[in-house]
Amino acid sequence: MNIIAIIEKKAKNKALSRKEIEYFITNYVNGNIADYQASSLLMAIKLNGMNKRETVDLTRAMLYSGDVNDLSCIKGHIVDKHSTGGVGDKTTLVLAPLVAACGLKIAKMSGRGLGHTGGTIDKLESIPNFKTSLSHEDFISQVQKIGISVIGQTAELVPADKKLYALRDVTGTVDSMPLICSSIVSKKIASGAKIIELDVKYGDGAFMKSKKAAKELADLMIYVGHKLNRTIKVVISNMNEPLGNNIGNSLEVIESIETLKGNGPKDLTELCLHICAEFLHESKMYDSYQKAYEYAKEVLYSKKALEKFKEFVSCQGGNANVVDDYSLFKQAKYSFDIISTKDGIIKKVKALSIGQASMLLGGGRQTKDDVIDMSAGIVLKKKAHDKIHVGDVLATCYTDKKDILEAKKLIESAYVIAQNG
Amino acid sequence: MNIIAIIEKKAKNKALSRKEIEYFITNYVNGNIADYQASSLLMAIKLNGMNKRETVDLTRAMLYSGDVNDLSCIKGHIVDKHSTGGVGDKTTLVLAPLVAACGLKIAKMSGRGLGHTGGTIDKLESIPNFKTSLSHEDFISQVQKIGISVIGQTAELVPADKKLYALRDVTGTVDSMPLICSSIVSKKIASGAKIIELDVKYGDGAFMKSKKAAKELADLMIYVGHKLNRTIKVVISNMNEPLGNNIGNSLEVIESIETLKGNGPKDLTELCLHICAEFLHESKMYDSYQKAYEYAKEVLYSKKALEKFKEFVSCQGGNANVVDDYSLFKQAKYSFDIISTKDGIIKKVKALSIGQASMLLGGGRQTKDDVIDMSAGIVLKKKAHDKIHVGDVLATCYTDKKDILEAKKLIESAYVIAQNG
Repeated sequence: MNIIAIIEKKAKNKALSRKEIEYFITNYVNGNIADYQASSLLMAIKLNGMNKRETVDLTRAMLYSGDVNDLSCIKGHIVDKHSTGGVGDKTTLVLAPLVAACGLKIAKMSGRGLGHTGGTIDKLESIPNFKTSLSHEDFISQVQKIGISVIGQTAELVPADKKLYALRDVTGTVDSMPLICSSIVSKKIASGAKIIELDVKYGDGAFMKSKKAAKELADLMIYVGHKLNRTIKVVISNMNEPLGNNIGNSLEVIESIETLKGNGPKDLTELCLHICAEFLHESKMYDSYQKAYEYAKEVLYSKKALEKFKEFVSCQGGNANVVDDYSLFKQAKYSFDIISTKDGIIKKVKALSIGQASMLLGGGRQTKDDVIDMSAGIVLKKKAHDKIHVGDVLATCYTDKKDILEAKKLIESAYVIAQNG
Repeated sequence: MNIIAIIEKKAKNKALSRKEIEYFITNYVNGNIADYQASSLLMAIKLNGMNKRETVDLTRAMLYSGDVNDLSCIKGHIVDKHSTGGVGDKTTLVLAPLVAACGLKIAKMSGRGLGHTGGTIDKLESIPNFKTSLSHEDFISQVQKIGISVIGQTAELVPADKKLYALRDVTGTVDSMPLICSSIVSKKIASGAKIIELDVKYGDGAFMKSKKAAKELADLMIYVGHKLNRTIKVVISNMNEPLGNNIGNSLEVIESIETLKGNGPKDLTELCLHICAEFLHESKMYDSYQKAYEYAKEVLYSKKALEKFKEFVSCQGGNANVVDDYSLFKQAKYSFDIISTKDGIIKKVKALSIGQASMLLGGGRQTKDDVIDMSAGIVLKKKAHDKIHVGDVLATCYTDKKDILEAKKLIESAYVIAQNG
């Protein structure tokens, strides 16, 4: 077997065998196949696609390129959740303590943000002293004890994805259904949970631009999960505008705490209750989705989930007093408002532009080595369907930077306004 | 402008602008674009193609990535010839002295062999003391003086092709019409001749597997040449079986000398007379192809071309006595015959298998660093349409190697025999 023949086969639009796919992954990870050969094959896969069987084989090969977490020592129903990434997506920060407060177990490994999308690990690190790196033993014992732990991904899990993702990012091969599917599903299965909920975002600020593409990806991931003996549930949600109102690391933690206090925005609250209810139903703790949903709601509004969040933060070394005193977060040097120059109704707030603006304000990374300003970001004061008048504040920006011109322009362009007749 | 956006554009099957193509070539040559990005783009080009305008732009960008030979100081009609490569293709060895003896000028840069195809430079180096590396001044003055010089390609000409070709070779992206066209035409134009004959081979042992594909490539190269102000003529020839009877470096020089003595195989002799006649006609030395052809024939059979060959070999330091004494070539340690086990008629002798066998005997390189055995190779005693009987010698092999089993199997499998009813 040799990689050139494998590349030529895929370029001729023929399906690769399981052995050929395993040969590629094994030899790419151990360095026998060069980056320039892998990128040529990735482009052939992007353009000619892969059938379902190939996608399962690719996911399996990636999964076994490294360690697979064994969480069998943890008693109870272990669940996990993954979002395909978006702007202002703080679902994990609310959902994880909620499901733990409901009696499920969540042992989660999360990523960092890149470009216009944020990462859960960065957000948690905006809490003073919060540790996102624990030993495997501490991680497991914390989940056993309090039902929840969230840490950064370790190199040992799916090294093939680490290497392939970095390559796809710089070779125009990110946008491919089998490559996205195998990347997400291999990582989630390697993390060890048996019940996995995937939150597939679509729209302006997401990888999948249309609902149809999101549905196709969701179906593929469910199929691949099934073939690899995991229960995968999918929620497809709109990322045409940011989720909730706050974008930026500490700003998103604050909005999550408000949601756990029962004061959250409707879109974020509903999404978290829905996924929690699916977990409760799927794990057979409730025999109907409706009962499960009612229970999740009760746990949220009784503030049991908020208490669980405090316990979780303390357990990982963070200062849980932030829950009652937001001034304990790093504060931005400057803030400024974006003012409406029109009367009308907001049609949408483009998530991509808002995400890019937040990055420019310091809230995200342009390259992997950039340092994030935890306090930087945007609070949206108006969203789709809101009526506005000239002079209204559309959004408030927080930053340590003095030059905010480009970010301001991006936010202004993000607001699509239907002017009154 | 950035390379990821360019890759994504081509992946979406959109035509690249001249500026985008120039950006790619310039930045790939100077190292700002990585191999893994170039290979991803090459695969997108291979799968989605390029239109004619893009192919012209790519050829031009490659041409100006390095020096362009200025041969304007040479008086007379400067012609050049290129073959897309084949097995036993010794055309240049016969044609170059023939055209020089006819009064045309040929200043040729040739390549080395790789894999199952041979290279003119390697073949010439089988002549004791022959030098294939001359200074630019010596090269020009030799052409001025005797009308002919053949040297190895220098790094300064089309560095983009050097780098791209090496990459294509290991990333499954050799087989692409616009990439093949731009590679050949940029090199030929950079070499400096105004009248260029391209010998496009098709069939089993060639890049182009069908006559239709060869015709398509030929038309594209004529178009690109025209757009870049060069006269390009094309001959399309069959490479389903090797050209002539000898395959291997010194063996091919010997067969070329025999052809210059008037004893050559018909296919090789005819091809050389045809191309020479086209040059004479195109350069307006003869007003009809038929007259040009008759003149070429006269020059060949009067042995003026043989005399020119001797002069050429001496001028480049080689021992011209080889013409009269083949024992001056390095002699192989062993020879063995391939014997027919069947009665019948030969339908064809597969060029690819013969080329691979010659390589295994020591006559070619598997990797760029392999050293060639100049005496190794194969002499075909029977070719298509020949009647054979059990016990007849089909071919004779020459080699320094003792283990010839694999080569023997390949040669046996190359002979496709229709058995008598």
